[in-house]
Amino acid sequence: MTGEGPGAGRVRLRLLAEGRPPKEVSVPPGVSVFEAASWNGVAVDSTCGGHGTCRKCKVRVTGTGGPAGAVPVSRLDPRAFTPEQLRDGWRLACLAPAVSDLEVEVPALSTRPKAATVGVGRQVILRPAVQKRYVELAEPSLSDQVPDLERLLAALDDLELTPDLHAVRAVGRVMRAADFKVTAVVVDDALIDVEPGDTSGSRYGLAFDLGTTTVVATLLDLSAGTPVAVRSMLNLQQPYGADVISRISATMLDPAALDRLRDAARETLDQLALEVCKEGEVSPEHVYEVALAGNATMVHLVLGVDPEPLGVAPFVMAARALPVLLASDLGLRLHPRARAVVLPALGAYVGGDVVAGALATGMDRDRRLRLFIDVGTNCEIVLGDADRLLATAAPAGPAFEGAQIRCGMRASAGAIETVRLTPSVELGVIGDAEPVGLCGSGLVDAVSELLRVGLLDRSGRFVPDAEAVRLAPELADRLATVGRERVFTLAGEVYLSQRDVRELQFAKAAIATGWRLLLQEYGVGEDEIQQVLLAGSFGSYLSPASAVRIGLVPALALPRIVSAGNVAGEGAKLALLSVQERAGALALLKEIHYVELSDRPDFNDRFVDLLSF
Amino acid sequence: MTGEGPGAGRVRLRLLAEGRPPKEVSVPPGVSVFEAASWNGVAVDSTCGGHGTCRKCKVRVTGTGGPAGAVPVSRLDPRAFTPEQLRDGWRLACLAPAVSDLEVEVPALSTRPKAATVGVGRQVILRPAVQKRYVELAEPSLSDQVPDLERLLAALDDLELTPDLHAVRAVGRVMRAADFKVTAVVVDDALIDVEPGDTSGSRYGLAFDLGTTTVVATLLDLSAGTPVAVRSMLNLQQPYGADVISRISATMLDPAALDRLRDAARETLDQLALEVCKEGEVSPEHVYEVALAGNATMVHLVLGVDPEPLGVAPFVMAARALPVLLASDLGLRLHPRARAVVLPALGAYVGGDVVAGALATGMDRDRRLRLFIDVGTNCEIVLGDADRLLATAAPAGPAFEGAQIRCGMRASAGAIETVRLTPSVELGVIGDAEPVGLCGSGLVDAVSELLRVGLLDRSGRFVPDAEAVRLAPELADRLATVGRERVFTLAGEVYLSQRDVRELQFAKAAIATGWRLLLQEYGVGEDEIQQVLLAGSFGSYLSPASAVRIGLVPALALPRIVSAGNVAGEGAKLALLSVQERAGALALLKEIHYVELSDRPDFNDRFVDLLSF
Repeated sequence: MTGEGPGAGRVRLRLLAEGRPPKEVSVPPGVSVFEAASWNGVAVDSTCGGHGTCRKCKVRVTGTGGPAGAVPVSRLDPRAFTPEQLRDGWRLACLAPAVSDLEVEVPALSTRPKAATVGVGRQVILRPAVQKRYVELAEPSLSDQVPDLERLLAALDDLELTPDLHAVRAVGRVMRAADFKVTAVVVDDALIDVEPGDTSGSRYGLAFDLGTTTVVATLLDLSAGTPVAVRSMLNLQQPYGADVISRISATMLDPAALDRLRDAARETLDQLALEVCKEGEVSPEHVYEVALAGNATMVHLVLGVDPEPLGVAPFVMAARALPVLLASDLGLRLHPRARAVVLPALGAYVGGDVVAGALATGMDRDRRLRLFIDVGTNCEIVLGDADRLLATAAPAGPAFEGAQIRCGMRASAGAIETVRLTPSVELGVIGDAEPVGLCGSGLVDAVSELLRVGLLDRSGRFVPDAEAVRLAPELADRLATVGRERVFTLAGEVYLSQRDVRELQFAKAAIATGWRLLLQEYGVGEDEIQQVLLAGSFGSYLSPASAVRIGLVPALALPRIVSAGNVAGEGAKLALLSVQERAGALALLKEIHYVELSDRPDFNDRFVDLLSF
Repeated sequence: MTGEGPGAGRVRLRLLAEGRPPKEVSVPPGVSVFEAASWNGVAVDSTCGGHGTCRKCKVRVTGTGGPAGAVPVSRLDPRAFTPEQLRDGWRLACLAPAVSDLEVEVPALSTRPKAATVGVGRQVILRPAVQKRYVELAEPSLSDQVPDLERLLAALDDLELTPDLHAVRAVGRVMRAADFKVTAVVVDDALIDVEPGDTSGSRYGLAFDLGTTTVVATLLDLSAGTPVAVRSMLNLQQPYGADVISRISATMLDPAALDRLRDAARETLDQLALEVCKEGEVSPEHVYEVALAGNATMVHLVLGVDPEPLGVAPFVMAARALPVLLASDLGLRLHPRARAVVLPALGAYVGGDVVAGALATGMDRDRRLRLFIDVGTNCEIVLGDADRLLATAAPAGPAFEGAQIRCGMRASAGAIETVRLTPSVELGVIGDAEPVGLCGSGLVDAVSELLRVGLLDRSGRFVPDAEAVRLAPELADRLATVGRERVFTLAGEVYLSQRDVRELQFAKAAIATGWRLLLQEYGVGEDEIQQVLLAGSFGSYLSPASAVRIGLVPALALPRIVSAGNVAGEGAKLALLSVQERAGALALLKEIHYVELSDRPDFNDRFVDLLSF
C-alpha cells in the first residue's frame, strides 16, 4: 500500500489571472504555486519550466488562509524582487510552496506559450526540458579574458546550468570555428553541448512505448510539439517468452539471460530510433531527449536490473521513480549526451505504462468519475477523479493475447477482430485477408454474440444441440465437436471452443472483480461512473457493446465507453513536451492510492460470482 | 581581470558559539552562515556538509544590522523548525545567507568532529564528500512492498540522494545476497553504490598533483584523514615537450597530438592510482573520489580540451571551474562511479595548482600579510591576507628547470643542489652521487655565493681575472673560458657560465617585478610582509639565504622565508577531506583579484631595474 489518504488535508488556491475569471483549485500542501497553477491550466510565465532559474514566474500572494506572510521568502526571491515587493507579497511561483489556503495574482504572460494536443483530449503548453539558445558572443581580448564557458553562460544568465564535460570540450573549439555565434543545447539544468551557428530550429525528442509485445517510437519536433515520424515493431525479446512472467523466468533459469534480454530491448529501441530519424529526415545527433513508458518488467530488463523480485512474492520493484539517465544507458545512439526519462511506476504490476496512461487521459484533473482499464495479460485498473484516485492490478491471464485460445492469435493480418451474428455470421478480419485465427476483440465479440443469440448460456456453456436448433436454426449446424470439446465454427478452420469460453470467463471475472472492488473501496456504485476508458492496443479494438454484454466493463451507455488508444505512448510524449507534465507523472505516484486485491478476503467470492456472464 | 574590489562591501558576523568567546568575522554578502562559520574555524553541526539535506546545522540569528527578519526563511526551514522557532530566529545555517551584519548563536556540537592536519599548519575538520552508511533493513513482505531503492533511501532520510543507475542495478541483488544488511556509498548528493554487509570502514580517496614534469598521487583513508600511500612519477607527456608551451604547440602542429597527450596524462594517473592502491593494499573499487590539482594546460590536456586558446593571445581558458566529473573521465579504473573533482583555476597562467596552494597555505584566512611564490617556468605569485588577496603570473623562463642552463638538469640524482664557497667549494649533491649537473636551487646558490665573494659583480658579470685573484685567491683558478664564454667550474665538467647567470637574472627580474608590482598594487612596502612561502618542488629546495641575496624574494629575516612543499597536492587532499575546503577553493576565485602585469606601462622599467643583483 502506498500513498496517504487521498485528498486529505489539501490546501485551496484562488488564482486571479489577468483577464480571466478567478479559478479555485485544491492541491496537496507544499506543492509550488507554479505547479498548482500549471496543473490546473493557469499558465504562469516561465522559460525554465519551474526550475527556479529564469525568475520569470512572478506572482503576488494577496491573501492567505494562514498566518500573514505564510509563504516563505525563498533564497532566490531577494534576487528577483525589491524588499518592498517582497513585503507586498511578490514571490517566484516555482519556489513558493502552497503551505496554506492562498489567493494569488498571476500577471499576464509576456510571451504567448505554444501548445500541442496530446493524449485523450489533452491540450498541453509546450515547455520541453530541451531548450536551444542561439547567442552571438563578443570575441575575447587581452582586456576581456573571460573563459569560453563563462562567456557562454553569462549570455544565458536566466538559467543556472551545469555543463557536461562534453560541452566543456566543445565550447572553445565551436566558438572559434563559428565566429563566436553558437547555439547552446540545454536539457533541464544541464548544458549538454554547444553547436556552431544557429541550430535553434532543430530540436527533437523521442517517445517510446516499450510494450511486452509491441514497441512504438514517436519522433517529436519539440519546437512545434508535433510528431515527425512514428514506427512500431515487435519487441525483440519475444523469443524469451510472450509475457512478462516467462521473461522473468528466463532470467532465473539462465544467468546470461538478463544481459541478452537487456540487449534485445536495446536493439529494439535503437532500431526504431534510427528508423524514425531516417523517416523524419532528422539527424540522430539532433535528438536530445528520450522518454520511455513501459511496464515494470520491461523497464527493469532494458536497464539490466534483475527482475526476479518482481516475479516472486512479495513482488518488489527496484525503484518506482528512476533518476534521469542518458539515452546511451538505453543503448541509443542519438546525441551522445541526450537524456532519458523513464516514466515512474506505481508498483510491480501497475507500471510506468499505466502512469503514462493516467497522465495522458488526465485522470488526476478530470472532475468526472472515470474508470480506466488497460486490458491485457495483466490488467491495470484506475478509478477516480481529480480529487481521489485508486488503482489495482488484476491477473487476467493470456486470453486477450490469444495465447491460450485454440485458434487464438495476435491482432495481426488474418485475425478475426469483429463478429456479428445477424443471424448469418459476419466477420471483420484484419488486413482484409482470409480469416486464420481469432484475436482478443474477436473473442469477446464471438462470446458476446453467442450469448445474445442463446447458443451460450449464462454459465458459459454451449447449449445442447436440440436447444441450439430451436434458438438459432441458421447457426446450429456450426456447433461441432473437436477432440472431446464442443466448438462453434466461425470460418473454415477457425472456431471458438468451450475451453476458450472458459478462459475468457476467468479473464473477465478477474477484471470485473478488480473494478467492482475498486468501486466498493471508493464508496460509489457502478451507475455513478461517467466514463470508461479502454486502453492499450487491445482496448482500442474492443467493441463496447460486446464488452458490456460479457460484463467486462460496467453497463454504461455505449458512447461513454471510449477507446483511449496507445495512452502509454501518449504519456511518454507528454513528458517530452512539458516538464510540468513530467512532474505531474511523478505527482501521480502520490495521488494514486494502490489497492492490493490478492489479500482481500472477499476477492475469491466475488471472482466466483462474476464467472457467469 | 577577474573579481571585484576585494573586501568591498563585506558583512560582519558575530558568532556566539557555546562555551567559546564571541568571534567576529567578515565575509562577502550572500555567503551562507554555515560557510562563514566553518571558514573561520567555528564548527557548526552537520552530517551533509552544508548541502541543505541533513537539517542539523541549526543556528539562531539573535541580532541583525539590517531590517528585522533580514535572514530569509528557506524552503527547508519550515521542515526543520516550528513557526515559533522561525520567529525566534532559528535557521538552517547552510541555507541562511549572510545578507547583512548578523549576530548568530551556534549551539554546541552534538557529535565531536574528527580533524586531520593537512597543508601548511592547517587543521581541517573531516567532512569528506564520500560517506558510507551501514544499514540493516526489514525484509519486504506482501504487506510491505516498498521498492528496494526506496527502502534503502528511507533509512538514509537525513540525506536527499540521487541514485546512479549503477546503484539502482545493484540495490536489489545486493540486499538479497546480504540478508538486507548493506552499506550505501554516497558521494555528495549521489548514491553511487550499495555494497553487501558493513563496508563502512573502507572509504578511500585519491589526491593528484598533476604537474607538467612530475605527477604525485596520494591515497587517503577518508575515515581517518590520513595518507595510506604516496607515489610520484614523471608525466608521460614529457616526450611532447618539457613545458606547457611546447605541449600546446604540439597540439597545434599535429591534430592527433591532443588525443595522445590526453592519453599520456591518463596513463600516468592510472599507473599511479594502481601503484598507490597496491602499496596501500586497498582495492581500487574502494576508491570513491579523486581530487586533482594542476595548471590550466595540464587540466585541459587530461580532459581532452583543446589548449590552443591558452597558448596564444588573449590567453583564454575553456572554464575556470569544472563540473563534478567521473574518475573514469580521467581514465581511472577505480570504483566505476567514483567522482572526480578538479580544483578550479584563476586564469590561464594561475591554475588549479596555485588555487590549491593558496588553499593549503590558508592564504585567505591568515591575518598576516604573506607572499606566496610558486617558482617555475611560469611563476605564480599571491600576496595578501584574510581581507584581501592579489595574484599574478610572471614568465620566469626555464632557468629553474635547468633547461637553458649549460650544465643544467632536473633535481634528480647527481644534481648539485647546494653550493657553499667557504672559500673552498662545498657542494650538496642529490643522491650522494658524483656531480653531473646543476639544478635550479644549485644555480641560485652558486650565483648567490659568487656574488657574496665578489667573483660576480652586481650587474651579473664575472670580474676580470686579476680582480678575481685579489678578491678570492682560492677560487680564482676556477674561472675559465669555454667556447667564447667565461665560466666558473664547480666540479669536474660541471660549471656555471656567464650566459647561465644571465638566464637566472632574467628569471629573477621577472619574479621580483611580479611581487614588487603586487606590493605596489596592494599599497604596502616590502618590510610589511610577514612571511614568504616558497612553493613547488623547486621552492622546497631553494636556500632562503641565497634567494634573498640574489633578490628573488624580499629581504626578510630568514626564518620568515618558509618552504611550503608540494602545496598543490596538499590542496587536492584538503578538497577530498572536506567539502567546506572544496567550497573554499571555489570561493578563492572570487576572493583573489588577478592583476595582469603584461599590459602595465611600468613593467619594463621595473624589469630592467631588477636585472641587477
